[in-house]
Amino acid sequence: MPALAEFDRLRIVLIATRNPLNIGAAARAMSNFGFLHLRVVNPYQVAFREARSAVGASLLLARAEEFKSVADAVADCTLVVGTTAAGRRELRHPLRRLQDGASLIRKRLASSNVALLFGSEKVGLSNADFSHCDWLMRIPTREEHRSMNLGQAVAVCLYELARSSGLARVPLDRKPAASADLERIANMLLDAVRTSGSLQTRSAAGTQEKIRRLIRRHKMSAADAKFWLGMLHQIVWKLHSAKDSTS
Amino acid sequence: MPALAEFDRLRIVLIATRNPLNIGAAARAMSNFGFLHLRVVNPYQVAFREARSAVGASLLLARAEEFKSVADAVADCTLVVGTTAAGRRELRHPLRRLQDGASLIRKRLASSNVALLFGSEKVGLSNADFSHCDWLMRIPTREEHRSMNLGQAVAVCLYELARSSGLARVPLDRKPAASADLERIANMLLDAVRTSGSLQTRSAAGTQEKIRRLIRRHKMSAADAKFWLGMLHQIVWKLHSAKDSTS
Repeated sequence: MPALAEFDRLRIVLIATRNPLNIGAAARAMSNFGFLHLRVVNPYQVAFREARSAVGASLLLARAEEFKSVADAVADCTLVVGTTAAGRRELRHPLRRLQDGASLIRKRLASSNVALLFGSEKVGLSNADFSHCDWLMRIPTREEHRSMNLGQAVAVCLYELARSSGLARVPLDRKPAASADLERIANMLLDAVRTSGSLQTRSAAGTQEKIRRLIRRHKMSAADAKFWLGMLHQIVWKLHSAKDSTS
Repeated sequence: MPALAEFDRLRIVLIATRNPLNIGAAARAMSNFGFLHLRVVNPYQVAFREARSAVGASLLLARAEEFKSVADAVADCTLVVGTTAAGRRELRHPLRRLQDGASLIRKRLASSNVALLFGSEKVGLSNADFSHCDWLMRIPTREEHRSMNLGQAVAVCLYELARSSGLARVPLDRKPAASADLERIANMLLDAVRTSGSLQTRSAAGTQEKIRRLIRRHKMSAADAKFWLGMLHQIVWKLHSAKDSTS
């Protein structure tokens, strides 16, 4: 199996990982299956340092990029997928089985970057992390013991992604919007809602996540995102200037 | 996923494993995917003891059986499969890709016991171990980095074995938005754009159609539409009241 151009477009994003052995294990599985771009968001610093300095730590690990926020880590991706054991929590995102999800991810990798997110060992991804995702993916484990070890979960996901990489490509007629633009749209919309005064009784953080999920669900093309940005820019500008002149 | 009768016929056999963490990781993956029979042959005694006494060590690990020889460990199985990274060694056994091998293993599990062997972290299975096998199986990893971590290799093999065992799909039921709501959203958005003053140079009719198509492309659920209507109602109200007070 050669390192395919498609594989080069996947970003594995580890969020708030605690155990250096798990960061190392994720990196090893990535190297085994030919996915070489690792990103970490707010890792426990000791863990990240130890993982990097471990005997046999790979070039892949040395080149891992560190980010302060999920938004930054997925900014250049047009599809963001969160992994979850889908336990007790109520999920507000579409949830796909690994096999079905991997097939969609592979299609997108034919033309643009995809981020695959893994949460911390203890609690997985948070609702705030989920709000950056287009949809969620679950490895079909046993009801009685859903939650997998992080390194093993990464290995299984990448195996499935690599498994049938000889599939025919499906052309994408619409260039999908970059995450950075979706984040700008969500923020401008939040600004508009806030400025028009309807946020007093609701939690601002909750509304932000709700708006972010909404925008993600709309599966915008790059052109749609540009159109939204133009409209919202004008609306927000007007709302602010009105506020300034009347206050 | 219920613990299927077929799954109950698989024996995972770890041979000469050194690291207690790897024994624990193998046990965890087995529990995740519903294969509950672990056998160990000549483990480093300290490793086996530590793995069994680890915090959170499972019933599965407590029930693991210990054998002095590979022959004893596979005695009740009608098919014995060895796993290998298939590196430099010349192999005298048929070698199958995981996907193809797993399919044969599943067929055999319908009627009798199968043993799946994993060698030590350092050297894998020996030629003597191979001699007990009917054939060998390889996870399709990258030429440049074939050898997987033991716990991850177990997880990937068991995932592939469990993968097509007839799991129910995760239902995705989102009630789609009614056209009337989409039209209201488009009209309110047009109103907001018009009121915020960016329509002077463009054709209003053209913009209305553009917005309507945009909203259609977003394939909203009924709940999404309701959320949009709430936000836009507030924004439009604010824009109008600002306009009235400043004009």
